[in-house]
Amino acid sequence: MPHTTVDFRSDNCGRAAPEMIAALHAVNTGTELGYGGDTLTAALQTRLTQVFETPLRVYPVPTGTAANAVALAASCTPFGAVYCHAQAHINTSECNATGFFGGGTKLVAVDGEHGKVSADALLREIEGAGVGLAHKNQPAAVNLVQATDMGAVYGVEEIADVSRVAHARGLAVHMDGARFANALATLGCSPADASWRAGVDLLSLGVTKNGGLLTDAIVVFAPDVAANIGYHLRRAGLVWSKMRFASAQIMAYVEDDLWLRLARQANAAAGGIAQRLSALAGIRLVAPVQANELFVELPSAQALEGLQAEGILFQRRGPRLARFVCRWDTGESECAALVAAIERQLGTATTPQANGAPS
Amino acid sequence: MPHTTVDFRSDNCGRAAPEMIAALHAVNTGTELGYGGDTLTAALQTRLTQVFETPLRVYPVPTGTAANAVALAASCTPFGAVYCHAQAHINTSECNATGFFGGGTKLVAVDGEHGKVSADALLREIEGAGVGLAHKNQPAAVNLVQATDMGAVYGVEEIADVSRVAHARGLAVHMDGARFANALATLGCSPADASWRAGVDLLSLGVTKNGGLLTDAIVVFAPDVAANIGYHLRRAGLVWSKMRFASAQIMAYVEDDLWLRLARQANAAAGGIAQRLSALAGIRLVAPVQANELFVELPSAQALEGLQAEGILFQRRGPRLARFVCRWDTGESECAALVAAIERQLGTATTPQANGAPS
Amino acid sequence: MPHTTVDFRSDNCGRAAPEMIAALHAVNTGTELGYGGDTLTAALQTRLTQVFETPLRVYPVPTGTAANAVALAASCTPFGAVYCHAQAHINTSECNATGFFGGGTKLVAVDGEHGKVSADALLREIEGAGVGLAHKNQPAAVNLVQATDMGAVYGVEEIADVSRVAHARGLAVHMDGARFANALATLGCSPADASWRAGVDLLSLGVTKNGGLLTDAIVVFAPDVAANIGYHLRRAGLVWSKMRFASAQIMAYVEDDLWLRLARQANAAAGGIAQRLSALAGIRLVAPVQANELFVELPSAQALEGLQAEGILFQRRGPRLARFVCRWDTGESECAALVAAIERQLGTATTPQANGAPS
Amino acid sequence: MPHTTVDFRSDNCGRAAPEMIAALHAVNTGTELGYGGDTLTAALQTRLTQVFETPLRVYPVPTGTAANAVALAASCTPFGAVYCHAQAHINTSECNATGFFGGGTKLVAVDGEHGKVSADALLREIEGAGVGLAHKNQPAAVNLVQATDMGAVYGVEEIADVSRVAHARGLAVHMDGARFANALATLGCSPADASWRAGVDLLSLGVTKNGGLLTDAIVVFAPDVAANIGYHLRRAGLVWSKMRFASAQIMAYVEDDLWLRLARQANAAAGGIAQRLSALAGIRLVAPVQANELFVELPSAQALEGLQAEGILFQRRGPRLARFVCRWDTGESECAALVAAIERQLGTATTPQANGAPS
Repeated sequence: MPHTTVDFRSDNCGRAAPEMIAALHAVNTGTELGYGGDTLTAALQTRLTQVFETPLRVYPVPTGTAANAVALAASCTPFGAVYCHAQAHINTSECNATGFFGGGTKLVAVDGEHGKVSADALLREIEGAGVGLAHKNQPAAVNLVQATDMGAVYGVEEIADVSRVAHARGLAVHMDGARFANALATLGCSPADASWRAGVDLLSLGVTKNGGLLTDAIVVFAPDVAANIGYHLRRAGLVWSKMRFASAQIMAYVEDDLWLRLARQANAAAGGIAQRLSALAGIRLVAPVQANELFVELPSAQALEGLQAEGILFQRRGPRLARFVCRWDTGESECAALVAAIERQLGTATTPQANGAPS
Repeated sequence: MPHTTVDFRSDNCGRAAPEMIAALHAVNTGTELGYGGDTLTAALQTRLTQVFETPLRVYPVPTGTAANAVALAASCTPFGAVYCHAQAHINTSECNATGFFGGGTKLVAVDGEHGKVSADALLREIEGAGVGLAHKNQPAAVNLVQATDMGAVYGVEEIADVSRVAHARGLAVHMDGARFANALATLGCSPADASWRAGVDLLSLGVTKNGGLLTDAIVVFAPDVAANIGYHLRRAGLVWSKMRFASAQIMAYVEDDLWLRLARQANAAAGGIAQRLSALAGIRLVAPVQANELFVELPSAQALEGLQAEGILFQRRGPRLARFVCRWDTGESECAALVAAIERQLGTATTPQANGAPS
Repeated sequence: MPHTTVDFRSDNCGRAAPEMIAALHAVNTGTELGYGGDTLTAALQTRLTQVFETPLRVYPVPTGTAANAVALAASCTPFGAVYCHAQAHINTSECNATGFFGGGTKLVAVDGEHGKVSADALLREIEGAGVGLAHKNQPAAVNLVQATDMGAVYGVEEIADVSRVAHARGLAVHMDGARFANALATLGCSPADASWRAGVDLLSLGVTKNGGLLTDAIVVFAPDVAANIGYHLRRAGLVWSKMRFASAQIMAYVEDDLWLRLARQANAAAGGIAQRLSALAGIRLVAPVQANELFVELPSAQALEGLQAEGILFQRRGPRLARFVCRWDTGESECAALVAAIERQLGTATTPQANGAPS
Repeated sequence: MPHTTVDFRSDNCGRAAPEMIAALHAVNTGTELGYGGDTLTAALQTRLTQVFETPLRVYPVPTGTAANAVALAASCTPFGAVYCHAQAHINTSECNATGFFGGGTKLVAVDGEHGKVSADALLREIEGAGVGLAHKNQPAAVNLVQATDMGAVYGVEEIADVSRVAHARGLAVHMDGARFANALATLGCSPADASWRAGVDLLSLGVTKNGGLLTDAIVVFAPDVAANIGYHLRRAGLVWSKMRFASAQIMAYVEDDLWLRLARQANAAAGGIAQRLSALAGIRLVAPVQANELFVELPSAQALEGLQAEGILFQRRGPRLARFVCRWDTGESECAALVAAIERQLGTATTPQANGAPS
């Protein structure tokens, strides 16, 4: 095996789509007003309004964490509770951002399979929350990660079920769509069906992981939910003065369905690996592979360490649990190399030594 | 006059330097670890260490406001006071960011000419602050804007004077270097002399206004002052997952003195205008033009409105006060057009109508 | 002169009114629900509704700072600006509390005589604030201190003038009534006329300084301004579990006009001193003495030091500026001792040595 | 049954100890400096230093929530994690206070029996926390509730076990001693053994629930852990100007072992009820009754509703779960009435109807 990188660490390890860098060149002419007052950011509003088939406001922001935290802060009180899955990114990986932006806003974990918030479990939590009691934080919003942090995808009806529970009790529905395009590619429905028509009020629209460079976005479908989001962004240092270079990325992202094409490539890579792994004894996929991530339980910790020793790059999520993430530019050779390495570790490959990487 | 824009609104209205977009292409290969774990961000540490001739840590961040707010939050207590000039950007234009990031940190305005904090005035404020009294916020940091918000530049000794007052009383020295390169070009000294050697502990290093796209940076000279800055950034959603595309911009920015070349162009444009205006009766430059900004008092509000009516783009800062900012790509024709328009408004030009812009 | 204390440091140095301690005994029977669910706190709502002749909500809180900060946090956004006089207690003496509770809310100083916010100056500030511009904090509330931090009292029309400016622009009107009873005693009008009828939306009702023990209160006239104040209080640890002992103090405070009687005593003491001082050459009262505080400029720093050396207790507010505060229990002998000491320092007393305090 | 209240809702429903009101009278003489500068607060430092046999600082604060939140904010970073039991008061009943005071500080639930944090479970959580990873909040403190929120009491060795795990990893140990006296009465050891000698760095010392009126306290054993706590208190509006009336309560509280005598009375009442209930079939005490609280599972929801219908006052914590809290002044007749009512609901009493309360 040559010294080719086999990298399944994260989709944020990948390249930017050339179309998105090209877009930066294209807009680098003339002068434009700063802080989002430029013509390109205005055009982006129009463009996303078409893409989502509804009036909306879009705010490019540097990171998904910023998108999540501002969307929640703008729609919650500081004494509010945000319901999310225990595995949700905001709960595990954002270093207290929700509480920081919200002035103390607390996360409450809700059960559900494969990283999904269950509508029934949400209902039980809200009913036990002590609505109206001053010593209890008050239900304010629910956070859905799409695709989930276990690599599954909410069905449109699952989103709608959660939204119904939430809206009936005054909660905002926030979707952390860090991998929204990957989910959309799987669902095959329109962006509208996958978001506001199913009840989503605010969407963190992931761009970076799926071929972007330096921008994600907040998409606000329910302006009353987040009337003051512009000020929240400004006081948080999240409004670029040369906003046009962020807006240009997002324009390119949705142009000619680039986002879906990139997402399909990543999903296809993951699906292909999943199919090949499912034929192997001793392997367990702990959640359905519906987007571009695989959570794979191997028979032993040794097997994981073996993969690492072979130079396969991935995240270890438990003694026997590995996460493999496919990028839009993950190649077939990388996929094949991963599967082969796993087969070797399982001892099921016929000639493991012959294929073995040099130590 | 053809339909050419004459745009002095802000340096953030300008283009990105082509070198910086080219840098994005150059690094768009292979895979890299996210969130600043990439090789390019590591190389940036080394590169800036050379540029500033001292060990330091550099953190690319999306905006100058983010840089300022995190630098101050990481070096102050929530019950701290940050001293700054009344005209300082953190005091006038950052929508409560310092207080938000700092958990309440309060700004205290300090007098001084041309937007500069005076060391003597700072000393008086600290001495009257009630150090050790629990009902008083406690002196924590001083903020210097370089170049100042009035277009002047602190001399190295002026910085050192403020730093001595601050350090002797335990305050951190933060420089908001949104236009650090412009100031450096004027000072003609080394980056080290203009920063840590003069006592600066933390520097917000402006990149965007001077030819960048989407990144500025925090440069920390005194690691003990801001030990935990990485967590502050993460919880604020300010750590890009594809950091390499930010680091690449900053690498290009300092390569072959690009930053200084761009800054010199902007400064030269401003200086040229200043020289021509200084010959005109009825015009007052309210601060020395030492970087790329001019603050110009015209003889009447009518004169300002006349400029606006002619289509000259600039910021109005008072009934008779205009701000004109030169970009790295401000052309000589723009400068000439501005001066000519001002002359017309002053009634000093011989044939105003002949030069008049179409309405 | 015997070893009697002559103490003009602060009204919070004084005793509690015996009636208020007696009230604690009276309610110390049986069991009551905690956290304000008790019958006495309910009765307090009714009682203050009568006193102020309007529906309202009253929340006993431990301190005036808590009252101010929660009232403002509950009526402002985190990107809001609170206008106040430069001498306002929230600006000088509350250790960043407004910013802390408000998530960054910033104080903006407004000019005015004798510690009063001028309606005209407020209007100018709001008009220059940049309403609607995301990089500017947004006008949210105005804070009036009654009596002012210079010992003056707003007239009812002065309050109404400020309120009109504020309400026309969507700002809430908050009165820091740390010495509300003292002001009321001077105004001679009803509590209603001095508050909500003049436009006050939220009142920090001082109790401690005027004979209380451990409680002040927030009185909310405009419930929509501060709908969620109960949660703000709870998350800030400001809701006593045995609330009845706080409510009992406030009930006793307004019973039989106790608050006005105590305030009149303090005011009379201050007024008497003022009258005697006004006859002395070399003395300047820097603000009208309309409540229980005197701000007195002496001819020399030496004179102040002389007073201190004589054992007179007071606050020094400048090289030649002294603050003398009268308590409800300040005795005539204390007042006489103060005036005599000042006369001695002025050298106007005929036989200073004979009256001299032992060193 | 006469109309006598049988009230087991909470220990905060009870009276104040007469000794503590008497103390207010006793200190209501002369003048004293405000904000804790008084002689009585100074004396309290000395007194508690004796009681706890170690140098310490004590800060009277209005509520237990304030004590908890400030103690944690002063010892944690805003990106910190505080480990606590899922049932801990800070986690269930303080309306986001920890996050608010801490600037986002997050609570992480740790397993353990009877409301106790298990040292082993704590160790596992810290080891899985991602120490040093910027996207993870960082272990900062552990919170132990003594007595626990299930009515159990940590043994001294259990506290020491948790402290060892915490200190070895740089975490502060905070004890929420809302019922510290009740626990101490059970342990029978010295206050020192139950706190700092077992590793406690900061103690929220409950006073209100055990006979106080309006004050609890923070006791800081490790001054370096919380160097700036005075400022934290001041900016939070938690420093009474007439502090002596709070300090007086705490002085009286520890005088002649009043705190222990009151706690023993409450504990004895709870213990007596527990003993009588343990003889009844169909009753389950869900945690050992080691202080003044009982958590009792009845055989049916109907039984709970029957108790409520009889007019017994208590908190319902689940369909079949009741909480009964004994006050220092809970009388034997109340205890007997409770047990008799439970017996009636169980159908084990011989003549339930004869004793039945009118509906």
